[in-house]
Amino acid sequence: MALDIFFPARFFIDNTASRSLVVSISLFVSVLCLCIVVGHLFEENRWINESLTAIVIGGIIGTIILFASRGKSSHILRFDEELFFIYLLPPIIFNAGFQVKKKQFFHNFLTIILFGVVGIFISFVIISMGSWKLFPKVGFQGLSTRDYLAIGAIFSSTDTVCTLQVLHQDETPRLYSLVFGEGVVNDATSVVLFNAIQKVDVSEIEQITFHVLGDFLYLFFTSTLLGIAAGLLTAYALKTLYFGRHSTDREIALMALMAYLSYMIAELFQLSSILTVFFCGIAMSHYAWHNVTENSRITTRHIFATLSFIAEAFIFLYVGMDALDIEKWKATKTSSKTCFGIYGILIFLVLLGRAAFIFPLSVLSNYISSRSETALITFKHQVVIWWAGLMRGAVSIALAFSQFTFSGITRDPVYATMITSTIVVVLFTTLVFGILTKPLVNILLPQNTHTRRWKSDDPTLPLVAPEEPATSGLQQARRSLSMLLERPVHTTHTYWRKFDDRRRYKCVYDEHLVPTSGRGV
Amino acid sequence: MALDIFFPARFFIDNTASRSLVVSISLFVSVLCLCIVVGHLFEENRWINESLTAIVIGGIIGTIILFASRGKSSHILRFDEELFFIYLLPPIIFNAGFQVKKKQFFHNFLTIILFGVVGIFISFVIISMGSWKLFPKVGFQGLSTRDYLAIGAIFSSTDTVCTLQVLHQDETPRLYSLVFGEGVVNDATSVVLFNAIQKVDVSEIEQITFHVLGDFLYLFFTSTLLGIAAGLLTAYALKTLYFGRHSTDREIALMALMAYLSYMIAELFQLSSILTVFFCGIAMSHYAWHNVTENSRITTRHIFATLSFIAEAFIFLYVGMDALDIEKWKATKTSSKTCFGIYGILIFLVLLGRAAFIFPLSVLSNYISSRSETALITFKHQVVIWWAGLMRGAVSIALAFSQFTFSGITRDPVYATMITSTIVVVLFTTLVFGILTKPLVNILLPQNTHTRRWKSDDPTLPLVAPEEPATSGLQQARRSLSMLLERPVHTTHTYWRKFDDRRRYKCVYDEHLVPTSGRGV
Repeated sequence: MALDIFFPARFFIDNTASRSLVVSISLFVSVLCLCIVVGHLFEENRWINESLTAIVIGGIIGTIILFASRGKSSHILRFDEELFFIYLLPPIIFNAGFQVKKKQFFHNFLTIILFGVVGIFISFVIISMGSWKLFPKVGFQGLSTRDYLAIGAIFSSTDTVCTLQVLHQDETPRLYSLVFGEGVVNDATSVVLFNAIQKVDVSEIEQITFHVLGDFLYLFFTSTLLGIAAGLLTAYALKTLYFGRHSTDREIALMALMAYLSYMIAELFQLSSILTVFFCGIAMSHYAWHNVTENSRITTRHIFATLSFIAEAFIFLYVGMDALDIEKWKATKTSSKTCFGIYGILIFLVLLGRAAFIFPLSVLSNYISSRSETALITFKHQVVIWWAGLMRGAVSIALAFSQFTFSGITRDPVYATMITSTIVVVLFTTLVFGILTKPLVNILLPQNTHTRRWKSDDPTLPLVAPEEPATSGLQQARRSLSMLLERPVHTTHTYWRKFDDRRRYKCVYDEHLVPTSGRGV
Repeated sequence: MALDIFFPARFFIDNTASRSLVVSISLFVSVLCLCIVVGHLFEENRWINESLTAIVIGGIIGTIILFASRGKSSHILRFDEELFFIYLLPPIIFNAGFQVKKKQFFHNFLTIILFGVVGIFISFVIISMGSWKLFPKVGFQGLSTRDYLAIGAIFSSTDTVCTLQVLHQDETPRLYSLVFGEGVVNDATSVVLFNAIQKVDVSEIEQITFHVLGDFLYLFFTSTLLGIAAGLLTAYALKTLYFGRHSTDREIALMALMAYLSYMIAELFQLSSILTVFFCGIAMSHYAWHNVTENSRITTRHIFATLSFIAEAFIFLYVGMDALDIEKWKATKTSSKTCFGIYGILIFLVLLGRAAFIFPLSVLSNYISSRSETALITFKHQVVIWWAGLMRGAVSIALAFSQFTFSGITRDPVYATMITSTIVVVLFTTLVFGILTKPLVNILLPQNTHTRRWKSDDPTLPLVAPEEPATSGLQQARRSLSMLLERPVHTTHTYWRKFDDRRRYKCVYDEHLVPTSGRGV
């Protein structure tokens, strides 16, 4: 994306070659402004959300450009997956970590990891195997083993932005935390998987699973550690040096730069930069955020949300415009019947792949966590979680471009078909599944009842609960090694809290002080 | 600058060619963090300021890279003046407009315009003529008429960042406003001049003055109008649609994007984008800023300051590293004697060119404004203003690269000499003049006395004055056409205020609500 932006020729001095660049930026920024205004106007509409607005506006602008350029192009900018991974993804993921309600996240850590890691492996296998078996049946051939594996990774990454606009952190905190947490972890997993696939020797299929699993565990732990270390280092620097004395700018700049640095260093050592920056966000919001001035707190809370918001709008706008890219459609030599076959297969596999892990793993999670019956993931919730992860988004697009194009251009007709198929699947899932999410959630979890139900069902859920229920009453008896084994994460959180308390850290559990999404404030 | 950042090859997937890019970004971001920390530690030192720190750290890192690469390169990034003009300059100038104390600025508008426009023309003529006459005398030849004119524009643009760190807005508001206002306007003037030079037919010298003046007036008014229009449009949208109801992110994003859009549209129509974005900043802080939620106010105030801060640090770091660029020094075939001659001539012309307009124009300003004797620009203040504008900075560097290189590379030995000379002049003025500024200000305006003096001398200066003195008491009598002629700007401000009042706008004059620099809060 936007390769052209960053490679201008003597733009500043009057130059015809570079005027098109200025036109591009002006147009793109205007369209972004338009998206913001339209998104605001439709805020209260139950069918529409921000992503949809951006995609539709992108489509409209694409059509206009297509006509204006007489069918030559539908783009303001050319796709460059580097821009996505270097500039747009870091703020989105960092903000996710920064705004996540840590308590809920770590409460449900085990389930999140089950869904986000084990689940994605299951989905990956089903989509890879499924497309490998089914594609030839609709007459589509020419993909290598590595391509099929890549397809598994590409279509396993979910886009939960739409869903999060429907679910509410305060009304259904557990559900929100599960969907959100899984969304982040599965982004990371699919990117890690995708990278692992590029490295393994695909001729020895048996070795793949082993390699990928080993790689994944190594990457997961090192990346997490790096992110936490970067966050703690920033917190320490902010606390020791007390920047706020002279300048709030320095505090804000240091937090943003250190977060970005953690992402780049993870890239440098070929770790999972997404995981790193996510955990850096968590560490910063838990430690660094409390060491800065009040003004810096407000500013960082909002600015990271705003950056993330702009990056998302940018991506969805682009997807909308890209859908009309005539060149890619021309490069596809596949018949329309085969094409629709491919779309059908992919959407079916997405549905199947997700169902194949959400329902069994929910049962497993209910069994392992052995919580009180009311805190179980009910079937209705399972359906919502399943549905919430059906959307495919920016990460899928970026991975597909990475696999099937070179800097956004593809000449190979088979690869061009895969690109157009990815775009169709992303558009279809975002538009159709996305539009149906709000009604579905309303039917399964009626607003009035579920709000009350969640609040009464699970006393651990109120956000300002001063005590961890695990440490009180009857459950005290369970404080043993067996508990650690049974409920490792809940216990992790307890120990983490103890660690914080021991360090006599001014650690405020009152979650209203912890940064929450800037929206609706 | 940083062309390489933006043109990576399949970076995301493991790739040796792109690893150097990741290394570059990581290193540069680390060095930026280092600058922030070191800058903070030296905050209370009287000799050192942020720019100096960045240049020195840049120089040290450059030396390390030079040794590490065995004399091949001293760069992390390659210079690209487009990056400067598209990404780094807009936040700096917008923030300048956003944070300026509008009341002071418009009070001194006439003097600021005298210094920033007429003064720069004088300085431009002196430096162009001087270098044209003197360069051949030290044995340096080969520059065209256009090059000499460009040199005039390059070395007329001042860098007041250093000085503003020494002067204090609250202690010496008038002096601060004069230096700051002139700094902004002269940036714009020199860029406009530089662009005008590229367009005129240099063979007809007589026409130049006429053309340049006409161009300048046209650009000044259209650019200003565009900026104000963009600011007002944003204010109107924010007020009418009331974004804050749903999302503070949208408010912040809209303000930032609209400001950037005004800059790009000015570029598109070949206006002075600097002036546009500056006035857009003023209009936004005066109107839009009051229409957003409290959180957005705090966030925008700090985030624009932070962006500007990072952009400045980036530029000075780069200048420090660039000073050691071995290629440019090798390309210079000029003898060291001639080189020192050139440096001497340029520094002499900078001193002379500035003296030639500050002192006469101050006298003129004192005469025209016919203020009470206490509000005159005293000789001591003239010396401070003269000295404050001797530093040459980022704009000079960018213009020089624009004139004498192609995308940061030059093979021509004469042009290479001009590049190295520009770097030496920038380094010398920033380091030597910069270091001497604090002591000079302390000698000329002793802290204790001048603080009191300014406050008692000029009753119009207290920032929270609820009434414009011009509309009260004896001065009431002067409310006539002659006053409008004599003191057009003061009157402009009065009418502006009346306009605001008439529109029953919630216009808060209490300047503590108007955004001020985030520093030291």
